[in-house]
Amino acid sequence: MYLPSDIILTDFCPLSITTPLTQEKSIEYLIQLITRYICAHTPSEKPSAVERSVRESVEYFAVSPEHIHSRELYALTLTDNQSSPSKKLHNEGFYCIDNFPYEMSVRVRMEENARLAERILNRLYHQQQTPPETLIHVTSSGYSAPSPAQRFLANKGWTETVVSHIYHLGCYAAFPAVRAAAGALHTSLALPTHRGDKRVDILHTEYFSLHLNPTAREPEDIIAFTLFGDGFIKYSVVPGTEYTPENGGLRLIAMHEQLLPASADAMTWDIDTHSFALHLSKSVPTQIRDHCLDFTHHLCAKACIDLASQKDTMAYAIHTGGPKILDFIEEQLHLPAKALRHSRELLFDRGNMSSAACPHLWDRLIRDQDIAKGTLVLSLGFGPGLTMAGMIFEKV
Amino acid sequence: MYLPSDIILTDFCPLSITTPLTQEKSIEYLIQLITRYICAHTPSEKPSAVERSVRESVEYFAVSPEHIHSRELYALTLTDNQSSPSKKLHNEGFYCIDNFPYEMSVRVRMEENARLAERILNRLYHQQQTPPETLIHVTSSGYSAPSPAQRFLANKGWTETVVSHIYHLGCYAAFPAVRAAAGALHTSLALPTHRGDKRVDILHTEYFSLHLNPTAREPEDIIAFTLFGDGFIKYSVVPGTEYTPENGGLRLIAMHEQLLPASADAMTWDIDTHSFALHLSKSVPTQIRDHCLDFTHHLCAKACIDLASQKDTMAYAIHTGGPKILDFIEEQLHLPAKALRHSRELLFDRGNMSSAACPHLWDRLIRDQDIAKGTLVLSLGFGPGLTMAGMIFEKV
Repeated sequence: MYLPSDIILTDFCPLSITTPLTQEKSIEYLIQLITRYICAHTPSEKPSAVERSVRESVEYFAVSPEHIHSRELYALTLTDNQSSPSKKLHNEGFYCIDNFPYEMSVRVRMEENARLAERILNRLYHQQQTPPETLIHVTSSGYSAPSPAQRFLANKGWTETVVSHIYHLGCYAAFPAVRAAAGALHTSLALPTHRGDKRVDILHTEYFSLHLNPTAREPEDIIAFTLFGDGFIKYSVVPGTEYTPENGGLRLIAMHEQLLPASADAMTWDIDTHSFALHLSKSVPTQIRDHCLDFTHHLCAKACIDLASQKDTMAYAIHTGGPKILDFIEEQLHLPAKALRHSRELLFDRGNMSSAACPHLWDRLIRDQDIAKGTLVLSLGFGPGLTMAGMIFEKV
Repeated sequence: MYLPSDIILTDFCPLSITTPLTQEKSIEYLIQLITRYICAHTPSEKPSAVERSVRESVEYFAVSPEHIHSRELYALTLTDNQSSPSKKLHNEGFYCIDNFPYEMSVRVRMEENARLAERILNRLYHQQQTPPETLIHVTSSGYSAPSPAQRFLANKGWTETVVSHIYHLGCYAAFPAVRAAAGALHTSLALPTHRGDKRVDILHTEYFSLHLNPTAREPEDIIAFTLFGDGFIKYSVVPGTEYTPENGGLRLIAMHEQLLPASADAMTWDIDTHSFALHLSKSVPTQIRDHCLDFTHHLCAKACIDLASQKDTMAYAIHTGGPKILDFIEEQLHLPAKALRHSRELLFDRGNMSSAACPHLWDRLIRDQDIAKGTLVLSLGFGPGLTMAGMIFEKV
C-alpha cells in the first residue's frame, strides 16, 4: 500500500475586485466612523474633542503605513460622494460613511458574503468549459447552505463536481485546503473502479471588510481593523500527469500541523449578532516566536531537509500575519536577508489577507524568475488554536 | 500511481446525552411556546382561543407520533419545575418554558454549542490514551474559532492531531467526512517520508434543539421542529492493517455525490440574528424521488454492482430524512420489504438527526446479526444543494 505522490499546485488566479485603499485613507475612515458613533451615542460630548481623542488612539495603535501601504476593503469602497440609497446595496460597496450600518444584522452580512462569492465564481469560470472534479471553497467570512459554491455549480450545470468547504479556520486555512485537495486526488486513484481525478480547484474568498465594526475600539480592534484586508484567489491542485510545466507550479513534498499549548484564547473569531468578531491578543507574535523553530525542524524532517545547511538555498512563503511575526520568524530561523521579501511585499501591498495570503505568496514565488525550478519552498501559516501549519514544496 | 484502497469504518460510539422526549410531549411543548409568544405580543387576544388555533395548526403539520416516537432535544430537557435562574445556563438544558429565550442572541447559542461539543469530546476520550492522527468534527449547529475540537486537543495535550471541520453541510455531511478521512489516510501513505496514519476519528455533534425558534410558525417550520432531533456519535476510519475484525466494520468500496438541478432554494440553513434558520420546501421529497434511481445506478456502477440483480442481498442505510423520503426511495429502487427497516426504526427512535443519522445507521447495520459479513451496503444521504451523496460499503 504505497503511492508515489505527485501533487502539484498550479494555475494561480489572484483576483482584485476593487482599488485598494491606502492605509492613510482607511485609518482616516476608521477615525471618522468611530467618532460619529461616539457622537451619536453621547451627544453631550463636543465632536471636535471626540475626534481628537479617537484620532490619537487610532493613530497610536494602527498598523503603520510604513508596513502596510494599502488594502483591498471591498465593503468600504463606496465613498461619501458616491453613496445613494439606491446604490448602497447594489454591489458597489456595502457601507457608506454617512449612513454606516453599525447595527446591520449578521444575516444581511451572510447574504452579501454569499452574493460576492458567487459573483466571483461566475467571473472566474466565465470562459472555462471543463469542470474540476472537486471545488474547495475556503472562507471565514460567511456561511450559507446551499453555499455559493453549490449554487454556482448547479447554475453552471456542473452537477458532478464535488463541493468541499474549509470554513472558519482563519489565516492558516490554505494548508487544510491543500491537504483536502491532495486527499481527494489520492482517494480518486485508490478506490478500485474510480477514475483518477484530473483537477481540484481551490477558491479563497476572505471578505474581512464586511465585518468592520467601529463600535469595537479597543487597541486590539484597532490593530485588527488596520491589519486585515480582503483577499481573493483561485488555483488548481493536479496530479503530475495533468501538469503543464510552462504554467509553473509547486510540488507538495511534506506537511505538518500542530496546536500550540495554552494559546486557545490568544486569537478568537466568533459569530456575533451584528458581525463576526475578532479578538487578537498581544501575545500572538511571541507565541509564534517561541514555537516556530521547533515546528520548522519537524516539518523539514518530514521532507529530509536539514534547515541549517539548506536554508540559504530555499525560498519562503511565510504568512503575512503582521510585521512583528515576520521579524520573529526571520530571527528564530536565522534566515538570510531578503528571505521574507515576498511576505513583506505582500503585506505592504495588501495587508493580512487571512487564508488568501499564502496562496498569493505561492503565486508570487512561482512567477519570481530569480527563484529557479528545483528550489525548495518553506511555507508557514498561523491561525486560531493557536495552530501552526506548514508545507514544503519544490518549485517545478 | 495506484493504491489498493482498504479503508474501514469501525468502533462506533453512539452517544445519548439526555432522555429523549416523546413526540407527544415535544409537540405539546411547541404548542405552549408558540401560544405564549403570540399572547405576549398580542395581549388583546384570548389565550384559550390562541392556544386552540395554534394547537390545530401544529397538530395538523407536525410529524406524527406514528412515524417518530421520540427525539433527543437537549436544549429543552430543562422542564418548568427544574428551572431556576442559576441552573438555566448551567448545562442541564438551555431553555425553560416559563422563561423561553425567544430573543437569545446567536452568539450565546454559539457559546453553548461549543461548550456542549467540548464536553462530549472530554467524555468520549476520557479513558483513551492514543490520539488519532486526524480528528474530524462534523456539525451544522455552531462555529467558533478556536473550535471545540481544537480546545479539547490542546487541553488533552494531543497537539499533533490534525483538526478538520465539516461545517454547515447539513444532513449529508457524514459522506464528505468519510471522504476527508479516506483522503487523510491515503495522503499519509503517499507522501514520501510521512508515516502511514493509523486512525482518523470522526465526531458528529448536531445540536438542532439549540436553534428552536417558536417565533417561526409556518407549516414548514412546524414540520422541521417536529422532525429533527439532536444527534451525537463518534467513530473511527482506519486502514485495513489497523482493523480489529471482532469490532465489526464497513469497508469503503465506492462513493458518489451530485447536485440536483434547480433545487437550491428547496432547503436552506442560514445564520440569523437569534439562531440558525431552516427553510424546508414541500418539494424536497419529490425532488429526491425524481433523482434517486439514476443516482443509485451511478453509484453502483462505480462499485461494479448491478442493482436489479443484487438488491435483494444488499443492506441499506438511507438517511432518515422523513417518512415520505423513505417511502419514495423504497418505491423508486424497488426495494424488498423491510430493506429500510433500520432507517424507519432510527427515525422512530430519534427523529432526523441530521449528519449523525447515517453513522447511527452504519452502527446498527454492523451490530445487526442478521446481516452477514460480506454483505454490500448502500448508503444514501440528502442535504442542501440539493445534494445527494452515497457510498457503497462491504460489511467486514
